[in-house]
Amino acid sequence: MLGNFEYSNPTKLYFGEDSLCSLNKELPKYGKTVQLIYGGGSIKKNGIYDQVMELLKANGKIVIEDGGVMPNPTVEKLREGVQIARQNHVDFLLAVGGGSCCDYAKAVSVSVHCAEDPWEKYYIRFEEPDCEIVPVGCVLTMVGTGSEMNGGAVITNHDQKLKIGHVFGDQVIPKFAILNPKFTFTLPRQQMTAGIYDIFNHICEQYFSGEDDNTSDYISEALMKSVIHSSRIAIRNPEDYEARSNIMWAATWALNTLVSRGKSTDWMVHMFGQSVGAYTDATHGMTLSAVSLPYYRYIMPYGLDKFRRFAVNVWEVDAGGKSDEQIAEEGLSCMEGWMKELGLVMNLGELGATEEMLGGIADGTLIMEGGYKVLTRDEVLNILKASL
Amino acid sequence: MLGNFEYSNPTKLYFGEDSLCSLNKELPKYGKTVQLIYGGGSIKKNGIYDQVMELLKANGKIVIEDGGVMPNPTVEKLREGVQIARQNHVDFLLAVGGGSCCDYAKAVSVSVHCAEDPWEKYYIRFEEPDCEIVPVGCVLTMVGTGSEMNGGAVITNHDQKLKIGHVFGDQVIPKFAILNPKFTFTLPRQQMTAGIYDIFNHICEQYFSGEDDNTSDYISEALMKSVIHSSRIAIRNPEDYEARSNIMWAATWALNTLVSRGKSTDWMVHMFGQSVGAYTDATHGMTLSAVSLPYYRYIMPYGLDKFRRFAVNVWEVDAGGKSDEQIAEEGLSCMEGWMKELGLVMNLGELGATEEMLGGIADGTLIMEGGYKVLTRDEVLNILKASL
Repeated sequence: MLGNFEYSNPTKLYFGEDSLCSLNKELPKYGKTVQLIYGGGSIKKNGIYDQVMELLKANGKIVIEDGGVMPNPTVEKLREGVQIARQNHVDFLLAVGGGSCCDYAKAVSVSVHCAEDPWEKYYIRFEEPDCEIVPVGCVLTMVGTGSEMNGGAVITNHDQKLKIGHVFGDQVIPKFAILNPKFTFTLPRQQMTAGIYDIFNHICEQYFSGEDDNTSDYISEALMKSVIHSSRIAIRNPEDYEARSNIMWAATWALNTLVSRGKSTDWMVHMFGQSVGAYTDATHGMTLSAVSLPYYRYIMPYGLDKFRRFAVNVWEVDAGGKSDEQIAEEGLSCMEGWMKELGLVMNLGELGATEEMLGGIADGTLIMEGGYKVLTRDEVLNILKASL
Repeated sequence: MLGNFEYSNPTKLYFGEDSLCSLNKELPKYGKTVQLIYGGGSIKKNGIYDQVMELLKANGKIVIEDGGVMPNPTVEKLREGVQIARQNHVDFLLAVGGGSCCDYAKAVSVSVHCAEDPWEKYYIRFEEPDCEIVPVGCVLTMVGTGSEMNGGAVITNHDQKLKIGHVFGDQVIPKFAILNPKFTFTLPRQQMTAGIYDIFNHICEQYFSGEDDNTSDYISEALMKSVIHSSRIAIRNPEDYEARSNIMWAATWALNTLVSRGKSTDWMVHMFGQSVGAYTDATHGMTLSAVSLPYYRYIMPYGLDKFRRFAVNVWEVDAGGKSDEQIAEEGLSCMEGWMKELGLVMNLGELGATEEMLGGIADGTLIMEGGYKVLTRDEVLNILKASL
């Protein structure tokens, strides 16, 4: 049932192969000094860096470089980015990259004018920002996290072995995002497939909650079907524009709050994955794929109707003459087959996790309450063991 | 294929049975004098008027009444509303009603400070507003048009026998909309089912265009399935909150530009319906239902793949051993069956249209170019004859 909720999303999206030039519409709205945030430097090889710099200069901006954002942005990098912004009196943060760059930019945005330690304030005490927020814009070069149209910002603290996400409100969500599917053509295959599974799992986290009939569930099924269909094309031909554009668009709508309206939402797979990430520094999407099936097979009996619906509506399982359990299990087998087609990591061992780590990973796994079963610590550990 | 496009939507939505009290959050943002727009007075019978007035007064507003908005708002009523706003130096327009009240409020909003005749400027010359725009908020009591989260405003000119819609930009879209499914419980059945068909047809107008694989099509199918499912529950029990809430939510997303991204879009059924409306003043949704099947059966060969997909994905037609034409036709037959279940008007005669009117209706039907076939005037006339 759709209970009481609010919906608004202020991000302006520019989509398509010509979308980068929309910077000419957006940049004049913000101040002169722009902190240019990017990752390991792939944008310098594929020409995106040069194109962005040209547009920044044509718009009269002073550009302050802030490269080297790592796949799981660390609290040390966050503190460095805040220093850069403070020293240069930065007016605007432009993230050029994937979810890590966008997440990092949002974390910097709420920390520049914050008098307290941002890790303590936002990630340990989960407080909301009460300072001026530096506006953020994104140019996406990787697809998956949906960070371009939401308030989420995940930061990793290796000393504390914690990887934690804070979902900030409307004032932190990027002002605009530029989505050019062609920018994703050159991504290594493992990054592409990890991103695809991240999208799919975002939808699962929202879909596998609640027993009611809900328009959000129909939309979730639509996004899942589109992602499955286009992913099969994209792994055969990474330069299939249509497939890449559908994946990019589905990614944004998978995690901009639309499909969570009226849902309690689960997020348990993400909690497992984040704790695994804190221990292994593995690619986010792969930490999710490694734990998903053991988790879903374990909770399936608690949400049998929804797993049955998932099998029939998403995987087109023929329900004739089968028990609900058989239908539901067949749906998960179809999902497993698709995950293997993509070449996803299917167990934690491949990510460098060892049996000795599992106790610590279990301790770092936040237990959520919106799914079909609130797990105990023993159940968390058992699911991790089954994922090894 | 998803080409180049932009997406943004500034409307803040408050959904649920407790959502009316959100006026306390929104009203303080606007000036003191509020023009309260409503229809024929049903809100005075069901108590919504009293609740809204109480909240307006609690927020210290001066309320200027503007009731009597008719189902197809006329250009005379528009001019009257503009006079009311000018004489009272109105700061905010609050529409309490369905699509007609929301559309009318938006038309007033761009006309109060407009030096020219609004009909000529916006509906004949299709110019954009270049004056100050009075902000609009909506409290929905009827579901269907999606007007609460888009820039559309349809106005009827009976003298000229024209009913024309102008889709304005972001600055005209309502600032907020309050969606309480319970407010729709008391609607007469014909208004409910006309609204449901209006939603469904909005989705069709966007879905039946383009041949490509597109994430928007998957979302469209999801919204159609949710509407079909919930409508069957709502006609048996109009007070089924879950069904009414799913219909209300689907209606908003059916026409807030999401499912048109990357699509050319058709809108031919709406052009037929609007011309029929100008001649008969019939309920909008019923003018659409009366012409839909003759139109879709006529264009089906030009978009056979999509009509086949519609049959399989929306109506679950078993494709085994059948030709594409048979499958597509079976889908339209399922749609026809559902329309009859709802008790929709299935021909123009029931709406008061006569054979003598058809030439004029054909002349008033704007011919669109985004669908599967650009119609000739003869084809328009033939489809109208088949709808009689």
